[in-house]
Amino acid sequence: MNRRKFIAGGAMLAGGATVAQVALARLPELVTMDKVATQPPFPPPSGRPYNPVVTLNGWSLPWRMNGGVKEFHLVAEPVVRELAPGMKANLWGYNGQSPGPTIEVVEGDRVRMFVTNRLPEHTTIHWHGQRLSNGMDGVGGLTQPQIPPGKTWVYEFVARRAGTFMYHPHADEMLQMAMGMMGSWVTHPNDARFMPVDRDFVFLLNSYDIEPGSRTPKVSTMLDFNLFNFNSRVFPGIDSLVVRTKDRVRIRVGNLTMTNHPIHLHGHEFEVTGTDGGWIPRAARWPEVTVDIGVGQMRAIEFDATEPGDWALHCHKSHHTMNAMGHGVPTMIGVDQRDLAATFSSLIPEYMAMGGSGMADMGAMEMPLPDNTLPMMSGQGPFGAIEMGGMFTTLKVRDDLGRHDYKDPGWYRQPPGTRAIEFTGDLPEPSRAKRGA
Amino acid sequence: MNRRKFIAGGAMLAGGATVAQVALARLPELVTMDKVATQPPFPPPSGRPYNPVVTLNGWSLPWRMNGGVKEFHLVAEPVVRELAPGMKANLWGYNGQSPGPTIEVVEGDRVRMFVTNRLPEHTTIHWHGQRLSNGMDGVGGLTQPQIPPGKTWVYEFVARRAGTFMYHPHADEMLQMAMGMMGSWVTHPNDARFMPVDRDFVFLLNSYDIEPGSRTPKVSTMLDFNLFNFNSRVFPGIDSLVVRTKDRVRIRVGNLTMTNHPIHLHGHEFEVTGTDGGWIPRAARWPEVTVDIGVGQMRAIEFDATEPGDWALHCHKSHHTMNAMGHGVPTMIGVDQRDLAATFSSLIPEYMAMGGSGMADMGAMEMPLPDNTLPMMSGQGPFGAIEMGGMFTTLKVRDDLGRHDYKDPGWYRQPPGTRAIEFTGDLPEPSRAKRGA
Amino acid sequence: MNRRKFIAGGAMLAGGATVAQVALARLPELVTMDKVATQPPFPPPSGRPYNPVVTLNGWSLPWRMNGGVKEFHLVAEPVVRELAPGMKANLWGYNGQSPGPTIEVVEGDRVRMFVTNRLPEHTTIHWHGQRLSNGMDGVGGLTQPQIPPGKTWVYEFVARRAGTFMYHPHADEMLQMAMGMMGSWVTHPNDARFMPVDRDFVFLLNSYDIEPGSRTPKVSTMLDFNLFNFNSRVFPGIDSLVVRTKDRVRIRVGNLTMTNHPIHLHGHEFEVTGTDGGWIPRAARWPEVTVDIGVGQMRAIEFDATEPGDWALHCHKSHHTMNAMGHGVPTMIGVDQRDLAATFSSLIPEYMAMGGSGMADMGAMEMPLPDNTLPMMSGQGPFGAIEMGGMFTTLKVRDDLGRHDYKDPGWYRQPPGTRAIEFTGDLPEPSRAKRGA
Repeated sequence: MNRRKFIAGGAMLAGGATVAQVALARLPELVTMDKVATQPPFPPPSGRPYNPVVTLNGWSLPWRMNGGVKEFHLVAEPVVRELAPGMKANLWGYNGQSPGPTIEVVEGDRVRMFVTNRLPEHTTIHWHGQRLSNGMDGVGGLTQPQIPPGKTWVYEFVARRAGTFMYHPHADEMLQMAMGMMGSWVTHPNDARFMPVDRDFVFLLNSYDIEPGSRTPKVSTMLDFNLFNFNSRVFPGIDSLVVRTKDRVRIRVGNLTMTNHPIHLHGHEFEVTGTDGGWIPRAARWPEVTVDIGVGQMRAIEFDATEPGDWALHCHKSHHTMNAMGHGVPTMIGVDQRDLAATFSSLIPEYMAMGGSGMADMGAMEMPLPDNTLPMMSGQGPFGAIEMGGMFTTLKVRDDLGRHDYKDPGWYRQPPGTRAIEFTGDLPEPSRAKRGA
Repeated sequence: MNRRKFIAGGAMLAGGATVAQVALARLPELVTMDKVATQPPFPPPSGRPYNPVVTLNGWSLPWRMNGGVKEFHLVAEPVVRELAPGMKANLWGYNGQSPGPTIEVVEGDRVRMFVTNRLPEHTTIHWHGQRLSNGMDGVGGLTQPQIPPGKTWVYEFVARRAGTFMYHPHADEMLQMAMGMMGSWVTHPNDARFMPVDRDFVFLLNSYDIEPGSRTPKVSTMLDFNLFNFNSRVFPGIDSLVVRTKDRVRIRVGNLTMTNHPIHLHGHEFEVTGTDGGWIPRAARWPEVTVDIGVGQMRAIEFDATEPGDWALHCHKSHHTMNAMGHGVPTMIGVDQRDLAATFSSLIPEYMAMGGSGMADMGAMEMPLPDNTLPMMSGQGPFGAIEMGGMFTTLKVRDDLGRHDYKDPGWYRQPPGTRAIEFTGDLPEPSRAKRGA
Repeated sequence: MNRRKFIAGGAMLAGGATVAQVALARLPELVTMDKVATQPPFPPPSGRPYNPVVTLNGWSLPWRMNGGVKEFHLVAEPVVRELAPGMKANLWGYNGQSPGPTIEVVEGDRVRMFVTNRLPEHTTIHWHGQRLSNGMDGVGGLTQPQIPPGKTWVYEFVARRAGTFMYHPHADEMLQMAMGMMGSWVTHPNDARFMPVDRDFVFLLNSYDIEPGSRTPKVSTMLDFNLFNFNSRVFPGIDSLVVRTKDRVRIRVGNLTMTNHPIHLHGHEFEVTGTDGGWIPRAARWPEVTVDIGVGQMRAIEFDATEPGDWALHCHKSHHTMNAMGHGVPTMIGVDQRDLAATFSSLIPEYMAMGGSGMADMGAMEMPLPDNTLPMMSGQGPFGAIEMGGMFTTLKVRDDLGRHDYKDPGWYRQPPGTRAIEFTGDLPEPSRAKRGA
């Protein structure tokens, strides 16, 4: 057992609490993750009980109890993250992955965060949304010195408020977030009966600009990102969210990109029930099918999963459900139509004759791609190519799952008579009636 | 009369309903529109009554009643749409126009949508926001096979929830929406007394990137669009919204562009009363003069039109009220000021001497333009050039209109003494008092 | 004393009020500002009492009472604005600065605005959010003729509704707002007991695109702005917001840029209590730590400043807290990694060996810069370089201030034991436990 000296500043925390004297502290074990799959919920091995969340293509960090304090050890470090099968990215993250592990604590817990910097430059961690002493806020230069490479710093505060939070650097911030440094934080309520749900998911929205054939994000991109991610994964690399029919479902989503992401759920209406600022009283909620999440915001949405099936869950900006190769392709429709001098009535048949045929073939075709590059549109569903990428996955609602069954059940088997079908008769040109005033 | 065989899958719909056996169905008549003007509201010729909406520069699709089912026929096809007088675009749409016709049904109606694909590539239709069987959701590859060119498919579901919806492809989605494929859907409440209004408008926000001199949108543009539309029309091609003084007015707006559009109304405050997820309880509403509509969101706003006049209604992003030629013009102000070494006190008069004179002349001048290209700023109002384009129109509030009068009443006649006026005395330099601590 | 003839149109205003006959009016004194520092609140020297606001890096315009009417004189003119020490910009503004002065009136006040145009092109002023006669709405061409250079026009209306508003041109709008023409307007409530606060701040969000080494904004930029401002100031040129511990604080922010700005406050939750459309009932408010402000929207946020310290207040889009030199820098991390063929397990150490070291050095280093250009990251805090720019400042919460003390109190002195600290023992590689299912 390594035991190290840990010289705490002592004295009083704002709010009356005391920084513990940890004279002979040893650093908590450094737990890392080498998988990209969604890990099963992590029931608390010590401390007070709670209903753990499921981090989409992520995991929760174990802790150590030390004199009543929950001690976590985050290490900021370069990582290699598979964004989807066929593409790995050189990112910066925490404990082996980007995003870092989810931190789960209980309202009122005293928390001690050991942060080791294994990056080539200094960093800090800001505990976005938390109420804490100014000196624990993690803004480099303003509330603390930067954490130099090779050093470990210690933050300590009481998780005063239940809710959904994030953590990320407040040091060389544009670059470090563009490289993937971020993680989710859930503070569970003191009373487990407060706003209970059957399924509780969390993930972050992030975006990268990685040139086809390359591995490392361009860090000064402000607008032209080409890979839009749920928790540093793009479709078809994003796991499905698996729930039982009639489950009460919560999905907590935070945005650390450079633009709004309107997250759209098919087949169900939901309400935003919480933000990183707190829970929203029932009377103030709006029914929605698309929640527009601003940068630096967390939104918890809730709904009853009443409709069995495979329901798309995606960003509604259509470019954000495409992968990198979709950006910069030339327009293939109507290239030579600039000088077109046809009349209105003759234009349509001519147009079809000379126009291109759209890009749908790209969802199925075997276009040669640079190494380490995803096709623009990909993913195979039960009925062929899904023609998506980026911020797209499915909510799978099923009758026959167990309470703790998070395993992908495969594609939905549509009951007979419930699916759109082809009209199979002969199909001459129908009469064409014109309206208009 | 053509009668075709229509082989339905039979059996049970989720929710207990049955897909009707339509053994000898014929395809409903294909009704198309060749006008770009706002069509008068379409009172229901059959089925249950409702108060029809007015689609801005659009129309509502007639249906056929067939054994208690409302049957509509949408045909996806290339269209030529006049965006404003002087500019036509090669788009993809439905039934002769882009956007497609508005679908109007009543809460509880069973609806059968025949969708014929006359595009050069496959497509589907997703019924955005509707509660329906998973197999009717229209996500190509995921919930159904794609609809190949030349084929007709049939969707059937009950319109379970009153509100405002959209329809658009979920197949080669980025390209097909960039080409204009979309339409509005209004499900009227079962009880016509629910949230009644005097005027009820609906339109979609869409954007195109069409190079000056060209006709066809560039389909891979993510950010640099140059034509921002209300229902595939730009100012001065957008009709006015005509209402009577004191009318309760609802405007339903959906966003299928790639960015937020903050829609701003002059002279009145409004509330958002509904989304594509449902109606918003009165206690949860916020007073607004600008509603920021996220992509893939519908917003119904309501207000009492108490103030007579011509009130601007526009996107508040100033580039979105400019047409294509406004993008890429060089800065003409202060071009040679880089080496300016004047002191603060002498800078202002010098600056005026050498600076450019702004771009306002462009609203009035006769700049030579490429064919099929709109000027950056245009439109003539009662007091000269309005200097706008794109997402701009007027709400015309008048005392002397009939309940069903939607015809443009011309410009507002301002009562004497109610208008800003010129100060007509001599105007020497007034004394200039400086403040500052 | 100059006395000028002012020929008013006479007669009746919509709503029953009368435009005053001002037969022998003289133009109100033209008051200008030559400081960029936040001016102390301006207690009303005449008219009804109110609790004045503090305009961040701005000021409030004095008025003249004339027969019960509050008369203000705004002059639109080219100005030179220091964006931060070391950089001045050639802008267009009002009364010596951009933004123009804040207008403060009381609900029910009759207001007469004299607007003199000293720009090289025509202009108007639109009183964003106000209820007024259509002819006072300030939309050039639509509700009035343009105001030519050299002329003065007069607007008159009753401030019918308490709240937060803006003013800006509705003439050559894209260019004139890109040049900085805008100002805040606060209509105080008739009853000073309505929603009282201890501190009341107001400012606008604006953005410029000024090439390094240049002084004048590029006026046709739609997306790629490089200077993101609070009231035409960028960090470290933005003053702090100074409040007392336990003060009820209101911050009113309006957005006149081209994109959403998610304004994030550290250490406190807040509620949006008002928009430019009105005040939000308590039951409809959401708890937040980040408010996403759409373009053309005003948001008043309120909170109790319970936590002493220096709390960051900033836009959460990380590029918006960088100055101009941060845009366009090449990616220095992993430039030569394209051909990297290492296996997963060996990649991480290799990556660190060859990768760049981030950009944090730029916060401290003395990089040679073009004249009149700010470094990408700058600002010195109590613990070193803050590494920020653009839309970033601090809320300084202190125990020992007077009610009317707005002077910057310097950096927060953190009580012992309340700050993150270094772990000072020896630090061997901790054991690395791997998880994963």
